[in-house]
Amino acid sequence: MQTTEQKYLDYVKKLSHFQEAVGLIGWDLRTGAPKKGVAQRGEVLGTLQSESFNLSTSQEFKDLLQELREDTTWGTLDEVTQKSVEHSEKSLKKFENIPPEEYKNYVILTSQAESAWETAKANADFDSFSPYLEKIVDFNRKYVDWVGYEGHKYNALLDDYEPGLTVDTIDRVFGELKEALVPLVKQITESEQPKTDFLFTHFPKEKQEAFSKAILTSMQYDFEAGRLDTTVHPFATGLNPGDVRVTTKYDESDFRTAVFGTIHEGGHALYEQNIDKSLIGTNLCSGTSMGIHESQSLFYENFVGRNFAFWERHYETLKEYADGQFDDVSLEDFYEAINVAGPSLIRIEADELTYSLHIIIRYELEKALINGEIEVADLPEAWNKKYEDLLGIRPSHDGEGVLQDVHWSFGAFGYFPSYALGLVYAAQLKQAMLKDLPNFDDLLRDGNLAPIKEWMTKHIHQYGKKKSPVELLKDTTGEGVNAKHLITYLSEKYQGIYAL
Amino acid sequence: MQTTEQKYLDYVKKLSHFQEAVGLIGWDLRTGAPKKGVAQRGEVLGTLQSESFNLSTSQEFKDLLQELREDTTWGTLDEVTQKSVEHSEKSLKKFENIPPEEYKNYVILTSQAESAWETAKANADFDSFSPYLEKIVDFNRKYVDWVGYEGHKYNALLDDYEPGLTVDTIDRVFGELKEALVPLVKQITESEQPKTDFLFTHFPKEKQEAFSKAILTSMQYDFEAGRLDTTVHPFATGLNPGDVRVTTKYDESDFRTAVFGTIHEGGHALYEQNIDKSLIGTNLCSGTSMGIHESQSLFYENFVGRNFAFWERHYETLKEYADGQFDDVSLEDFYEAINVAGPSLIRIEADELTYSLHIIIRYELEKALINGEIEVADLPEAWNKKYEDLLGIRPSHDGEGVLQDVHWSFGAFGYFPSYALGLVYAAQLKQAMLKDLPNFDDLLRDGNLAPIKEWMTKHIHQYGKKKSPVELLKDTTGEGVNAKHLITYLSEKYQGIYAL
Repeated sequence: MQTTEQKYLDYVKKLSHFQEAVGLIGWDLRTGAPKKGVAQRGEVLGTLQSESFNLSTSQEFKDLLQELREDTTWGTLDEVTQKSVEHSEKSLKKFENIPPEEYKNYVILTSQAESAWETAKANADFDSFSPYLEKIVDFNRKYVDWVGYEGHKYNALLDDYEPGLTVDTIDRVFGELKEALVPLVKQITESEQPKTDFLFTHFPKEKQEAFSKAILTSMQYDFEAGRLDTTVHPFATGLNPGDVRVTTKYDESDFRTAVFGTIHEGGHALYEQNIDKSLIGTNLCSGTSMGIHESQSLFYENFVGRNFAFWERHYETLKEYADGQFDDVSLEDFYEAINVAGPSLIRIEADELTYSLHIIIRYELEKALINGEIEVADLPEAWNKKYEDLLGIRPSHDGEGVLQDVHWSFGAFGYFPSYALGLVYAAQLKQAMLKDLPNFDDLLRDGNLAPIKEWMTKHIHQYGKKKSPVELLKDTTGEGVNAKHLITYLSEKYQGIYAL
Repeated sequence: MQTTEQKYLDYVKKLSHFQEAVGLIGWDLRTGAPKKGVAQRGEVLGTLQSESFNLSTSQEFKDLLQELREDTTWGTLDEVTQKSVEHSEKSLKKFENIPPEEYKNYVILTSQAESAWETAKANADFDSFSPYLEKIVDFNRKYVDWVGYEGHKYNALLDDYEPGLTVDTIDRVFGELKEALVPLVKQITESEQPKTDFLFTHFPKEKQEAFSKAILTSMQYDFEAGRLDTTVHPFATGLNPGDVRVTTKYDESDFRTAVFGTIHEGGHALYEQNIDKSLIGTNLCSGTSMGIHESQSLFYENFVGRNFAFWERHYETLKEYADGQFDDVSLEDFYEAINVAGPSLIRIEADELTYSLHIIIRYELEKALINGEIEVADLPEAWNKKYEDLLGIRPSHDGEGVLQDVHWSFGAFGYFPSYALGLVYAAQLKQAMLKDLPNFDDLLRDGNLAPIKEWMTKHIHQYGKKKSPVELLKDTTGEGVNAKHLITYLSEKYQGIYAL
């Protein structure tokens, strides 16, 4: 006779199996699935996703959750089961509060909006996209009322990506960032720029791939639990902790795309590879939030991969893989070149210094939109003005302005802040790590990244969704969200590079 | 209001989606899935397969099938629906006749037997495998009674792989093959062998891959609807007609593994790529039988790929890809070398002349086993004796004898005959094709394989499972199964090569 707990765990496991299949199909579609089979594969995905949706909203599932909440049962449950039930209840509650007809229409709307956005971006034609965006914003304005919120309406959206974080906290953190970074960026803009021309010499794809693999291995990425493939828009995907795949792309005129991209995705992958195996088959077996996930990728990309000590170790190796392009370039010049910073229009090409400002612009616009302070029609001008205010440059058309990101086309309001929070978290984690590993730079210099990965696994990776972002941060750093460490890090680093 | 026909088609489409997901997972597992994720992926497969099984045996499905059979409905159905219903009914009837408890135990048994077989084969230890094989044979003996048969018991098993073929036919066809081939093999064994040493020089993997791709393209394999990957045991898999993947392996000391392997799998792939699109999403959208499938792979491997005219076109290209290994080898010597034939112990390494004899041995043993004329314990000696009788050689141990094939370990009795039938069919198709394309050899010589593929699509590929093997053969060649064409082809070819 199965206990209710066991029935629940079996049920959730089945759901995890559907999601793993969906994940694999997604990976395949983005890494070389033959194009003539794609439409049919979309139908397969649709079937699996709708089965998965039906399972996670079924009466059977609701009954199980209710039975587990009974007083005589709840206290007997394993801790993992309890956390899992809480997560299930939370998702279910959200779904239950959305009128099914509205949800269905929204799914159709966003599936059409993405290709409308692509065309609009290519033509720099905001008007062709705004009818879609208006409906998407309209749905999200209603959504926050359906699912409920405390304080600011936007909190309801933040909860989907960064549970526990609120507008109050983010306003404070982003305010501090702006105050510190805007003048720093201005100073840098007026300074002499490092030489970078040697970055853009021909670097054969195969050599870049071999070097990327060597770096992943050095990061402690486990190739027996993963693989590296090429794609158009790089990503990492954790199918299960024993199968976490990294993708990258190779630009033969700019090796940085592959190398820093691979390190970034490798950081995501280390997280997913090192979640405790006891969580496999539950709904807790993935990163706890977008922001914490991004803290891992950005920690490796910036605090490891853009660190001088890291290149003290790896620069000679890079030279061996390259076709002579760095032979006459000193380590110091190389380091400065890969850390060149300054105002730019495109978020995904931004450096670590200005990146947060791109995010803050999006956050402020989203918040105002959801709160009804601005309308979709106001976005292009509001966007351009904020770029002038924060970065001192103005897009010449909407393709390089308000239309540049895909996120809004699939309704991902509340997602952007995670990127900047990831940077803030990464700096906080670095600070905490230094207490246990004061020889951090020596470790990089020695190519000994194992203690760094072990520290991350001990404090972050292993928990999956068992701990919330705020709990992880509190338990690891003793603090809440704190912009100070990022500001100190960026100020010191860039004052050094630009001799301010 | 949906008609019952539409409901049925939607239901079958959903089933096809599950099968496509299972197919993709299977491909991934065999082409580089990280080994640490495999156990978990196995559970995902288990869930999808059991969902698929539940769907295909549900009361809802049975009711749909019954409603469609009502007099007022049946006549109104589309032809594709009718054929699809017939296939569904047939599979369902089989499942319904197997006691569920026995089936469940059998699934567990065969999943254990495969790894027991692997160990037994490695140790040449038949006794460690025979307890499993006894239970598997026992199940299959009961199975033929559960599902029923006319004539010989073995007909029930043949029906799973080659519907419409019976022991009477196969006995006749295989009898004719034996009668012709045994003396021919004997003559060849006593003749002077072509030189083959130049085949085994180092041929770099990357060059083999590039050549294999060129050959696939020349065969009219559509790389926009497929891809070529490496694996341990090569296969082709049709996920849908727009996504049919070929796999191969590279032996740098023997290029034939990759080249003829790729041509063989490419033949399978052409079949699946060219099934009519109207069958997508039904249970008719794959090859109609194992034997017809094998007729396609063997047609391309032997009648195209081992044809002199084919190498008149491609030998110079092969030389360009190779590292000089054929520079001093004439086309004639090359042709004879790749067609060397003679008795051997291992089926999968056998040449096209002796291959059928390996199959006939297995067929005769299976038939006797199922009919209770021999027992599992008799197999090793019976096997060795047949090898002596038909091929004049005797295995030195069971690892190269009765334990060499995986098939029995997963209960695939009735499968082996398809391989030899495939050869017989291929020769029949070649004969029929010559009436429409009398310039067959000229087409190969010109590298113009499009008319050959188009002929196969017109007569075979497009129909999927809409026509049975016997119907396809009858409609295309005007004949039933006829060994004569294969015998003539092999006799003429090998008399030429061995100057008999």
